[in-house]
Amino acid sequence: MTGPLEGIRIVDLTSMISGPVATMLLADQGADVIKVEPPSGDLVRVMGARNTDTGQKGISPTFLSSNRGKRSLVLDLKTPRGIELLKDLVKTADVFVQNFRPGAVERMGVGEDVMREARPDLVYVSISGFGATGPYAHKRVYDPVIQALSGLASIQADRDTGRPRMVRTIVPDKLTAMTAAQAITAALFSRQRTGEGQHIRLSMLDAMIAFLWPEGLVQLTNPGGEDKGSRSQLAQDLVFETADGYMTAGAVSDAEWRGMCEAFDKPEWLTDERFDTAYKRVVNVVDRLDATQEVLRTRPTEEWLEVLDHHGVPCAPILSRANLLDHPQIIENRIVETLDSPDGRQVRQPRPAAQFSETPAGITSFAPGLGQHNEEVLAELGLSAEDTAALKRDGVLG
Amino acid sequence: MTGPLEGIRIVDLTSMISGPVATMLLADQGADVIKVEPPSGDLVRVMGARNTDTGQKGISPTFLSSNRGKRSLVLDLKTPRGIELLKDLVKTADVFVQNFRPGAVERMGVGEDVMREARPDLVYVSISGFGATGPYAHKRVYDPVIQALSGLASIQADRDTGRPRMVRTIVPDKLTAMTAAQAITAALFSRQRTGEGQHIRLSMLDAMIAFLWPEGLVQLTNPGGEDKGSRSQLAQDLVFETADGYMTAGAVSDAEWRGMCEAFDKPEWLTDERFDTAYKRVVNVVDRLDATQEVLRTRPTEEWLEVLDHHGVPCAPILSRANLLDHPQIIENRIVETLDSPDGRQVRQPRPAAQFSETPAGITSFAPGLGQHNEEVLAELGLSAEDTAALKRDGVLG
Repeated sequence: MTGPLEGIRIVDLTSMISGPVATMLLADQGADVIKVEPPSGDLVRVMGARNTDTGQKGISPTFLSSNRGKRSLVLDLKTPRGIELLKDLVKTADVFVQNFRPGAVERMGVGEDVMREARPDLVYVSISGFGATGPYAHKRVYDPVIQALSGLASIQADRDTGRPRMVRTIVPDKLTAMTAAQAITAALFSRQRTGEGQHIRLSMLDAMIAFLWPEGLVQLTNPGGEDKGSRSQLAQDLVFETADGYMTAGAVSDAEWRGMCEAFDKPEWLTDERFDTAYKRVVNVVDRLDATQEVLRTRPTEEWLEVLDHHGVPCAPILSRANLLDHPQIIENRIVETLDSPDGRQVRQPRPAAQFSETPAGITSFAPGLGQHNEEVLAELGLSAEDTAALKRDGVLG
Repeated sequence: MTGPLEGIRIVDLTSMISGPVATMLLADQGADVIKVEPPSGDLVRVMGARNTDTGQKGISPTFLSSNRGKRSLVLDLKTPRGIELLKDLVKTADVFVQNFRPGAVERMGVGEDVMREARPDLVYVSISGFGATGPYAHKRVYDPVIQALSGLASIQADRDTGRPRMVRTIVPDKLTAMTAAQAITAALFSRQRTGEGQHIRLSMLDAMIAFLWPEGLVQLTNPGGEDKGSRSQLAQDLVFETADGYMTAGAVSDAEWRGMCEAFDKPEWLTDERFDTAYKRVVNVVDRLDATQEVLRTRPTEEWLEVLDHHGVPCAPILSRANLLDHPQIIENRIVETLDSPDGRQVRQPRPAAQFSETPAGITSFAPGLGQHNEEVLAELGLSAEDTAALKRDGVLG
C-alpha cells in the first residue's frame, strides 16, 4: 500500500492555485488526480516567476510545484464530445473539483446534476472566491482581494503609518487549498461509511476569515471589544539585527526570561521593575525589545544562537531563501527533494509535510505536460488509438 | 447525521495553537474531542489578548476560538492513576494527538507503544516544531522561530531596506493545524478501509516550507536559480490610497486592463508602450502601480468600487477588522455567528469554512471550562460518582 488515498480517483477541473494545490496534496497521498485542462492549458503553466534558463522548458516553477503527481488530459468542453468524455471519466471517479465562478459549471453543462447522474456517489467540490450569492459572487478573485476583505491586509498594516500591507505570499489561495483538501478527505471518509456522496462548497473568503480568527481577529470575539487593540499579541515582530545579519529570539516564560538575562550577562534585568513579571514584560514590550536589540547587535548570529540555546531561549537565524537549503535542521528532515525532470534537468520539491508510518505519502511523479496523458487516460476509458486520433483530428483534445 | 466525522473520538493532549486548532476543525465536523489538560490547564486559557471587560470570565478569546466543540477532562499525568485513566480513555478512542517536544511522551509514559497497546488500531499523531531529530529537535518552538527558518520572514522583508519582517498572524501555527487536520482525516479514511491505525508525524517546519514552496520559494525550484529574483510575482502589494481610505484593485488579463483604462478614463494607457502587453505590464510594474495610485487617490473608495466593478476589474475595499462584520458579502455568507456563552454573554465565532451538503459541519458547543466534563467523561468510562470524588480528593483531577 502506498498513500492513504490510494485507489481514489479525482477529476480536477481547477486552475490557478486554490484547486491545484489541494489536489496535489491528495495526489501526494496516493490519489489518481486527472487534471482536465482546456486546449490552452492552465494559465499557471506560463505564469509567475518563469525561469526559462534553468526551468523545465515551457512550464513555470509554480506550475511544477502545484501539479506534481497528476495526469493531464486536454478536453475542449465547448464541444459536445468533450462533455461526453468528461462524463465518462466522472463515471470512474470518486471526486470532482472545480473552481470556476458561480454559475459557470451549469452554463458549461458540467454542474452537479449532470455529474451526479454519471456517478451518484460523487463528492462534488465547488471552490469559489466569495461564495455562490451576494454582491461579490460574480467577481473574479485574486489573492490580494481576499487579503483586503478578510482583514489580513489590516493585520499586516504598518504600525507607524497605519497603511495596510499585503502579505507577500498568497496565503488565501493556498490556505483555501488546505481547507479544501481536508474537506474532501472528510467527505471521502463519510462516503466510505455511508456510501453517499455530497457537495462541498468552499469560498476563499470563508476559509481566510476562519483561519485568521483565533488570534488575528481576536478583538471581534467579544461584542463591544471591536476597537480594542489592533494587533495580535501572539504575533510579535521579533526581528533583531546582529553584528552580521538577522535573527529571532523570544523569552515568554519566566525560565526563558532568566535564561535570556543570563545569556546576555544582564543580571540587573531580573530585578528591573519593568521586566520582573511576565505581565510587565508584555506591558513594557517596547523597552524590552529595544534593550534586546541593543545587546544582540554586539555579536554575530552564530555566537548568539549558541549561547541562547545553551540557556534554553528559543531562537533561530532568519534565513534568506537561498540559505534555507543549507540549514542543518532542514537537511536533517530531508524536506527538500531533488528530482530529475523528463528533460534531464533537476527540479526541487518539498516532501509532503505529514509523514504516515503505514501509508507513506510522497512525490509520485512530475507535473505533467499539457495533454501528456490524453492517450493513456482515454485508453483506460476503453477508447482505441483510432478513436483518440479521431478526437484529436476533430479538435476535442485541443 | 451531523458532521462527516460523527462518531469519531479524539483524545487530545495538545496545548497552545497547532494541535488545538486542528482538533477544533475536526470537532466542528462532528468528532467527539476530549481535551485532556493538566491541572494548570492549557496556557492559552489565560494568554493572548485577554479581554476581561467583555470576555467570558477567565477564558481568553483565543482559547474560545481554538477549542470550541470540545470537552475538557483534567488528568494529572504525573500520577499513575492519571496515566491509567488516560489509557482507559484511549481504549475508547480513534485518534490520539500530542504536541509535546520529541521524547516527552515516552518520558511521561504516554508514548505510541503504550497507547497502541490500549487501542491497537489507534491513529497516533505527533506534532512537533522541528521534527524528532536534528539540532533543533530539543528546542521549544514559537511561531516567529518557524517564520524565521521557513523563509516567511525573508519573503515579507522590507523592499527598501531588506530588513526581514514577521507576518503578524501566526501562520505557521495555524497552517500546521490545517495540515494535521487533513492528515488525521486521511488516516481515518485509510483505517476505515484497512482496519489499521498508524503514526502521523508532522513538524511545523515541514508544514510551513511545503506551504510556502509553490510561489513563495519559487526560486529554489530550479537548481541554479536560487539568487534570481527575491519576490513572489504572484503576490503584489496592491494597496492603494483613495480619497477616503484604502482599496485594492488589479488588472491581470488584457480584458481587465482594458476595463481599468476605461474605468479610469485613461484611453491613452491602452496604447502606452509601457503597458500594451501583459508582459510589459509586469516589467513596468512600478510605473503602472504609480499611475494607478495617482488616479485612485482622486475619488472615494465606494465610487471606485462601483466603476471598476462595472468594467470587470477585480477590486475590494481594504477592510479594517471592525469593518469586516458589516461587509455585505461577509453578512451574505453568514460567516460570523454569535453564540450565547454559558455565563450569558455573547461570543462571535466564524462558521467552519467548508460547507457539506449531506453531513453539515457546524459549531456544536462552546469552548469548555477547565475540567468541565470530568464527571461526564469519567462516567462514560464506567466510574461512579464516588470513584470520581475519590479521584478528586487524591488530586488526580487537579
